[in-house]
Amino acid sequence: MTEPQRWLLLVAYAGDRFHGWQSQPSGQTVQDHLERAIAAIAQHPVRVHCAGRTDAGVHALAQVVHFDTVVHRPASAWQRGVNAHLPPGIAVWHAQPVSRRFHARFGARARRYRYLLLVGAAPPAQWCGKVGWFHRPLDGEAMQRAAQYWVGTHDFSAFRAAQCQAKSPVRTVTAATVTAIPGGFAFDFEADGFLHHMVRNFVGTLVAIGKGYAPPEWAAELLTHRDRTRAAPTFMPDGLYFCGADYGAVPELPGGGRIIKVPHLAIDGEIAT
Amino acid sequence: MTEPQRWLLLVAYAGDRFHGWQSQPSGQTVQDHLERAIAAIAQHPVRVHCAGRTDAGVHALAQVVHFDTVVHRPASAWQRGVNAHLPPGIAVWHAQPVSRRFHARFGARARRYRYLLLVGAAPPAQWCGKVGWFHRPLDGEAMQRAAQYWVGTHDFSAFRAAQCQAKSPVRTVTAATVTAIPGGFAFDFEADGFLHHMVRNFVGTLVAIGKGYAPPEWAAELLTHRDRTRAAPTFMPDGLYFCGADYGAVPELPGGGRIIKVPHLAIDGEIAT
Repeated sequence: MTEPQRWLLLVAYAGDRFHGWQSQPSGQTVQDHLERAIAAIAQHPVRVHCAGRTDAGVHALAQVVHFDTVVHRPASAWQRGVNAHLPPGIAVWHAQPVSRRFHARFGARARRYRYLLLVGAAPPAQWCGKVGWFHRPLDGEAMQRAAQYWVGTHDFSAFRAAQCQAKSPVRTVTAATVTAIPGGFAFDFEADGFLHHMVRNFVGTLVAIGKGYAPPEWAAELLTHRDRTRAAPTFMPDGLYFCGADYGAVPELPGGGRIIKVPHLAIDGEIAT
Repeated sequence: MTEPQRWLLLVAYAGDRFHGWQSQPSGQTVQDHLERAIAAIAQHPVRVHCAGRTDAGVHALAQVVHFDTVVHRPASAWQRGVNAHLPPGIAVWHAQPVSRRFHARFGARARRYRYLLLVGAAPPAQWCGKVGWFHRPLDGEAMQRAAQYWVGTHDFSAFRAAQCQAKSPVRTVTAATVTAIPGGFAFDFEADGFLHHMVRNFVGTLVAIGKGYAPPEWAAELLTHRDRTRAAPTFMPDGLYFCGADYGAVPELPGGGRIIKVPHLAIDGEIAT
């Protein structure tokens, strides 16, 4: 028997074309498609593990995935070969062998998400499914001030979906920034981990603050109350991108262990909407 | 009888969700959806005219549209009211009454297109349908030099689809620029008008030059030969955006008559693909 080899894949996908990451009886999730495509190359069943299990509608630029196989194939087989078995909307863009000590999920010290939101009188129809939308102007400075209350180690029960299966609601947010882009805003969040719907709940609350429904301090009050029903509704998934994960300083990994890809999507022009 | 009122609409759409602009028996084109939605508000049949009749797969940020109606409705009815009757992927983002001398198609002095191309080992799956892709590095400087041969008034037969119905193959290109963006290139073209598939044929030829298949001067030779079969294949529509039109200096129009919206779509990160 050969000792199994562990492989790392970096995967991009269009969340609006699949039923989320996690395997389902429908077989139409990203995990399902990826496991079938890898198995077609490996000629044996394969189980994949990922850094960030995204919901339906949520995209990924650098989903970090690993799997084990006993067959010997070059990296190109696990990248271009696997891609030949994947539907449009999922693609492996990097493959490399890694140590069996590497684990895509448990080895990640931090995850990074970006939410892209465009603001205007009408939805940005050319990018429906790829970007969030709000119909009224938002106060970027108020949103940026609000997001700072979440940086640090807190109980995020107020931003956790009822169906969240995490053992603890405590997470450490290391970055939360609101940046003006042409036509809207980018929201960036980095944390050791995220509860179910946490980023979409952050964005919903920031939009409520940005439109003047509540002051920035409301972001801090919600933390204290730990009550999901007091916070704003979960925002649409359309503009949410999983950007990658940080495994600490590991020179042999892509990016030296910090595997992050950031999306930019914006409109500009001489015409106000 | 009331004198009909002419209305201008600015419309965005996702070209990958419809069968092109022009009305078809399928009823699934942008024109078909728009005419049905406007008729639902007007309560009479409506014919729309546009600045740039895009093919299937080609997106629009600022499609300029006009129509005539004998009913009196506020601008909000022709913007938000019409949107309520449109499917996701088409939206009116501006409506205003205009003089009967305004014509969306025949009044346009120039049209503007942008093509977004990402380059890397694998397709940018998260944006499939929204961006073009090439798998090998491209020489941006060579492409920019090549595109300059097309600026001016030329016979563009070499870049014209067989099914093109224009009377003359002569067009005046006023701008052709290739700009490096994170992860790829943006190709911008402005002309008094474009032949069928002209932009996609420009991009196909520039990519052939960018990958080293031919030198920049090939772009000039193709013009001279006027032979479509000598030029590169038509490039995929995915990354092509109609950005608007220029009606000269007309203060009462949006943008003072120059109605242009430009898309930005890019990826960046610390990891080379």
